[in-house]
Amino acid sequence: MTPKVARYLADHQPATPCLVLDVDRVAHNFARLRQAMPLARIYYAVKANPAAPILDRLVGLGSYFDAASFQEVEMCLASGAAPDSISYGNTIKRERDIAAAYAAGVRMFAFDSEMELEKLARSAPGSRVYCRILVGNDGAEWPLSRKFGCEVEMARALMIRAGQLGLDAFGLSFHVGSQQTKTAAYEAAIAKVAMLFTDLADAGVKVRMVNLGGGYPVRYKAEVPEIDDFGSAIMGAMAEHFGNAIPEIVIEPGRFLVADAGVVSSEVVLVSRKAENDPVRWVYLDIGRFGGLAETEGESIKYAFRTPHDGGSDGPVTIAGPTCDSTDTLYEKSNYRLPMALTAGDRVELLATGAYVTTYASQKFNGFEPLAEHYI
Amino acid sequence: MTPKVARYLADHQPATPCLVLDVDRVAHNFARLRQAMPLARIYYAVKANPAAPILDRLVGLGSYFDAASFQEVEMCLASGAAPDSISYGNTIKRERDIAAAYAAGVRMFAFDSEMELEKLARSAPGSRVYCRILVGNDGAEWPLSRKFGCEVEMARALMIRAGQLGLDAFGLSFHVGSQQTKTAAYEAAIAKVAMLFTDLADAGVKVRMVNLGGGYPVRYKAEVPEIDDFGSAIMGAMAEHFGNAIPEIVIEPGRFLVADAGVVSSEVVLVSRKAENDPVRWVYLDIGRFGGLAETEGESIKYAFRTPHDGGSDGPVTIAGPTCDSTDTLYEKSNYRLPMALTAGDRVELLATGAYVTTYASQKFNGFEPLAEHYI
Repeated sequence: MTPKVARYLADHQPATPCLVLDVDRVAHNFARLRQAMPLARIYYAVKANPAAPILDRLVGLGSYFDAASFQEVEMCLASGAAPDSISYGNTIKRERDIAAAYAAGVRMFAFDSEMELEKLARSAPGSRVYCRILVGNDGAEWPLSRKFGCEVEMARALMIRAGQLGLDAFGLSFHVGSQQTKTAAYEAAIAKVAMLFTDLADAGVKVRMVNLGGGYPVRYKAEVPEIDDFGSAIMGAMAEHFGNAIPEIVIEPGRFLVADAGVVSSEVVLVSRKAENDPVRWVYLDIGRFGGLAETEGESIKYAFRTPHDGGSDGPVTIAGPTCDSTDTLYEKSNYRLPMALTAGDRVELLATGAYVTTYASQKFNGFEPLAEHYI
Repeated sequence: MTPKVARYLADHQPATPCLVLDVDRVAHNFARLRQAMPLARIYYAVKANPAAPILDRLVGLGSYFDAASFQEVEMCLASGAAPDSISYGNTIKRERDIAAAYAAGVRMFAFDSEMELEKLARSAPGSRVYCRILVGNDGAEWPLSRKFGCEVEMARALMIRAGQLGLDAFGLSFHVGSQQTKTAAYEAAIAKVAMLFTDLADAGVKVRMVNLGGGYPVRYKAEVPEIDDFGSAIMGAMAEHFGNAIPEIVIEPGRFLVADAGVVSSEVVLVSRKAENDPVRWVYLDIGRFGGLAETEGESIKYAFRTPHDGGSDGPVTIAGPTCDSTDTLYEKSNYRLPMALTAGDRVELLATGAYVTTYASQKFNGFEPLAEHYI
């Protein structure tokens, strides 16, 4: 928690549940990332947190933007981003949204299929396109399965096809999974993409960009490697596989830029046991999986908690949200412990919750309003 | 799909994604349920779909209401429900919400813990309270784990305590899990609750109500038993265990009343393969898990689909939503098949989606607006 957030919470005691986010910390993270990977162009993954104060600040810092939808393109433009600083990075786009983005001046688009290429050729003619390939996600705490990307052989055929359709076969991309804790995941993916670069050059397609996606991890409950470790590993792999012909490098950080800038403040609604002699207490908060903490699904992302009783004796807990839905349980198997003194009405802070929280919140499931947001 | 919904979709072709719901069908389901369980008082689980046209109609039919929050209490009152027709059925309530409901005239509250009883004694003095006990969920497609309810021994102690605190120890409740397909689950739970009734009578606490919760199933992709089967099994078990001293019976249907009244209409955004020889196509819709289809988590609820090409040759598919989140995948392991002719721009209908969809939708995750709602 940054001193500015701590002070804001102490001074204002805003109604819970809410997010308080220190925009200066976003700028600090942007600078750290730029230093760790000076050759990379930073495209902020807007979906991590599309709040205008964040976009405004990043525009001022010269960031580029990775938009998941035409609505996100519009948010970037509203914050003053230039159209050519925006990449429409979702491989799944309605054709009318492609056309709208093109009309707004966007000229860079992701794809991973023949049908998407045909839509792009019709509705964004001549644009730079990049093909996403499937790579391993080992080491990621929020992995990506096979939803995005295609196999290398198909990517090769589609990049050739892109040129035939009048598109600019500009780049290749991959994503190693979000909250990726292993630098080796990037190294393996870079090796794979470099081979495809060579194959395509042999076929007469001169690819000029590699998009390394996001995934750079943030400290939640457990330690993670430093961003400099990722920078070194990535630049080492790029040099090893591309020699002195390193292409333009794009990265798409979301979580890394905004997560540790924000804190969710919540209230304990109830502390109970299921039987008198049960050692485990159930702690129910006024925010849960459907109030924004969607990444606790499967207990994937393990947030750190601060309570007014930290330092006193503690005991095992199951932590759950306030709705009448039993899947709205945050942590049951991850061995969380909270102070024995914790009781209804206490405020509890969830650290590093600036990313992938606010927009996941449901529109009034069980009647509960989405969390309030304070950008300071 | 009711004829009224089919006609509305054909005549209006409303923008996708949207829900179209036939309120007459809700009234029809209410009548079926009343006929299947004439002795039971029906408390509609508002969280299933809190839309005003549904609440208005149910008020007119003499329904009671199960509210998960003070906001849901307010929605019922706004539709003209009498305060004494409302039960505040969440066992996890902020004390100021209890006080607000009490001030609005609500006099029936659920609990499952000592701390909650103390809040009720302070902020809803003299109210009718009912204790939720833990029962088995076998046979439920959306099970409930241990989040709600307490063990029988604790329930016994808490019911005695309720009277000591000046509350009316009115009833006992359980929930066998949502989309419960086995009548035996209710029979086993009734046996358990009946024993506790006797125990409490021996201890001088005269319990007068048993709340059987909800869970009554709806036809999705697979057949389910008829509601009359549940009615017979439940009334048989009540007669067996309570003889001629049957207490007041409360049921809390949500899904059963509204699910098959509604249809989600969506658009195919993309159909693709991960490799040229891959037999499985990926079909991406403009609605997914974060657009309202949250109950597809773990492929629990399996919706049935209608497409313009039904009847033509089909093949295996993975079905996913439109966001840049790979957990936004609906069905990968459930052997769905869709027509080979399906393509981007086609409209696809998801049947029986009137319950547990609209309010689960996120507030603009990836920039996508929540689905539109049409009540007809």
